[in-house]
Amino acid sequence: MCIAQEEVWDVTELMVRCGRARSPRLGTRRNPLDGELMITFEVLHEDAKTGARLGRLTTPRGTFETPVFMPVGTKATVKAMSPEELKEIGFDIILANAYHLYMRPGVDVVKQAGGLHRFMNWDRSILTDSGGFQVFSLSAVTRVGDEGVEFRSLIDGSKHFLTPEKVIEAEEALGADIIMPLDVCSPYPSDRDRIRTAVERTSDWAERSKKALKSDQALFGIVQGGLHKDLRRESAEALVELDLPGYAVGGLSVGEPHEAMFEVLDATVPLLPKDKPRYLMGVGNPTSMLEAVSLGIDMFDSVLPTRTARNGLALTSVGKVNIKNSRYARDFSPLDPEDECYACANYSRAYLRHLYQAGEILAARLITWHNLSYLAKLAEKMRRSIEADSFSEFKREYLAKHGAEFGRA
Amino acid sequence: MCIAQEEVWDVTELMVRCGRARSPRLGTRRNPLDGELMITFEVLHEDAKTGARLGRLTTPRGTFETPVFMPVGTKATVKAMSPEELKEIGFDIILANAYHLYMRPGVDVVKQAGGLHRFMNWDRSILTDSGGFQVFSLSAVTRVGDEGVEFRSLIDGSKHFLTPEKVIEAEEALGADIIMPLDVCSPYPSDRDRIRTAVERTSDWAERSKKALKSDQALFGIVQGGLHKDLRRESAEALVELDLPGYAVGGLSVGEPHEAMFEVLDATVPLLPKDKPRYLMGVGNPTSMLEAVSLGIDMFDSVLPTRTARNGLALTSVGKVNIKNSRYARDFSPLDPEDECYACANYSRAYLRHLYQAGEILAARLITWHNLSYLAKLAEKMRRSIEADSFSEFKREYLAKHGAEFGRA
Repeated sequence: MCIAQEEVWDVTELMVRCGRARSPRLGTRRNPLDGELMITFEVLHEDAKTGARLGRLTTPRGTFETPVFMPVGTKATVKAMSPEELKEIGFDIILANAYHLYMRPGVDVVKQAGGLHRFMNWDRSILTDSGGFQVFSLSAVTRVGDEGVEFRSLIDGSKHFLTPEKVIEAEEALGADIIMPLDVCSPYPSDRDRIRTAVERTSDWAERSKKALKSDQALFGIVQGGLHKDLRRESAEALVELDLPGYAVGGLSVGEPHEAMFEVLDATVPLLPKDKPRYLMGVGNPTSMLEAVSLGIDMFDSVLPTRTARNGLALTSVGKVNIKNSRYARDFSPLDPEDECYACANYSRAYLRHLYQAGEILAARLITWHNLSYLAKLAEKMRRSIEADSFSEFKREYLAKHGAEFGRA
Repeated sequence: MCIAQEEVWDVTELMVRCGRARSPRLGTRRNPLDGELMITFEVLHEDAKTGARLGRLTTPRGTFETPVFMPVGTKATVKAMSPEELKEIGFDIILANAYHLYMRPGVDVVKQAGGLHRFMNWDRSILTDSGGFQVFSLSAVTRVGDEGVEFRSLIDGSKHFLTPEKVIEAEEALGADIIMPLDVCSPYPSDRDRIRTAVERTSDWAERSKKALKSDQALFGIVQGGLHKDLRRESAEALVELDLPGYAVGGLSVGEPHEAMFEVLDATVPLLPKDKPRYLMGVGNPTSMLEAVSLGIDMFDSVLPTRTARNGLALTSVGKVNIKNSRYARDFSPLDPEDECYACANYSRAYLRHLYQAGEILAARLITWHNLSYLAKLAEKMRRSIEADSFSEFKREYLAKHGAEFGRA
């Protein structure tokens, strides 16, 4: 039984007694976790010509098909979007970041609110990243040891010491459906010894995380090992030994050559159990997603669609559209001529450019909507083509049209 | 016949022919202006004890009751909101600013888009302010003469010369349902001679605006005169002579003492025709709206609810809530305990504070939603209490509870 979830119903009880149930819909529903066992995953169909597979993932909060793209809601909100809009686009699972929420507002605040789902008004699935990547990339790390990692906050300079156990405690308080353990991300490039140490610590920490876990949340393993296939094998084997409900590939898309990433991925995926979901962390550009799906990856996340949107960049059927460009000043066609998302059905490029130039919030809202919608539809097309054994044709046509124009990350 | 509107249907035709009607709903509807005559106004009920009145205003795009609060969408968007959200809250008319749209993206762009309604995806009523106030407050005015006003843009330093005729031409291109003429706003305080000149120019410019108007848009007059009741009388009489479809009181709420504003308003409103709508420009705080309604004002606009929201300030039944305050860090109650708007039904103060502290766009969206909803509901309560001849009791109770805590502007 998840501790955070026990809190939820106490808070609801309290609010109902005070005549202040925040949402009748949430206030009266039953605890969705009662009697459920973490997640289940089923491979529905394997593509005839590639390693791609159509899967079905069920969490205590719902069922959805894979391959799936998960929007990033680092600080308990997918930037510029409302939960209802994410549902309208068709998302069933989003990401949040335990590290960021640990720093602000504090996991105890989220726990007291009744958990992350209640706090942010999202009743579908959530995956929390541990924030290992962020600890190493956003903080001033002062010491990494076998025990954990010491760092200074970039918000207020305060000193923190995170251990795998503390991260699990935080993630239990947040109450996401799928959780990632604390891992060690080596920067690219790193020498082999450093990467070997990172692999060993990551495996050790995964084991400690599993032991520390008291809830029924689904703890995934994270395979590290840089571009060294033998270290990737060591990492994968140690984690598979732990029999976790899912496996992620981490430490890729951190600056290495694009081809090197897929070589490593190609060598790593076959080491992971076929009957468990496979998650490629931090990758969300269409080209890479297609390649990774063909190698057997099921889950993706990236800030690419939301961050580029706030910079005025749209992913469309006719390629990248940089709305800042003056050529769109009198372009009264939709952002994407082949799309019918809310933004494309109702607004012109000229209007979006005007909003962007004027610094209006609606620009970020509409372009984010479109970009997320674009990736949701791409994932759906991938799923249907896998089902029809035509994934390789779909991939070939897409790459012929777009190449790597949407970036590498 | 409005020129901008002719453009709309050409563009629709063109898009339909190209298989690219942007919105079936918009693309197939009939020209709402066909055979219609600008606006009609009807006083439905006069309050027994005050000057307050319940009215019904019909524009070519819809009918709504007064007193009404109009959200400000200066640059063709009500900041942080979508058109659908404004409709969900219950707004039937919004403001835009001809001056701002003239500067960026340019009225020709909006005209080419099919007019302002189409450009911003809002099919209900729009009122465009001429921007006289903005020319005098936001630009480097280099010369004001009888002919017009010369100023430099603060965006790019370019020189512009606006005349009443040019402003009408711009507003015809934008195609709003109600339009305001170019007027001269004197800063507070100004000497009597300067205000007298402003009054004379404003009257002269209103007459020229009426002559220049070729469309069926409803041109209102703007009464100026500072705090001088005799100049207000001069201004009102000259404008009433023009037999315009509505009258605004301008040049108030610009820094003068609160009481002085109502003294002038009390002296000015009786000079305006009873059967025409009366609009107090730039006022939107609840206290002032209640006072002004009791003197017979029907229409209001202000950036107060939207701007304060982006600064983390909410108008609530328990007074001002400054969401930045650390006392809300663990406050899991709604922003307004007596409200059921989208923001209050689904999110806690603790979550809103977290979003605000993290600089998340959703903070601006949710608090703006609430503040606009608060004013829409206040206007509705005023209308129902006027209908029931209980407006003075409603006003007394409201002022006893809130005083002037929501500000003066």
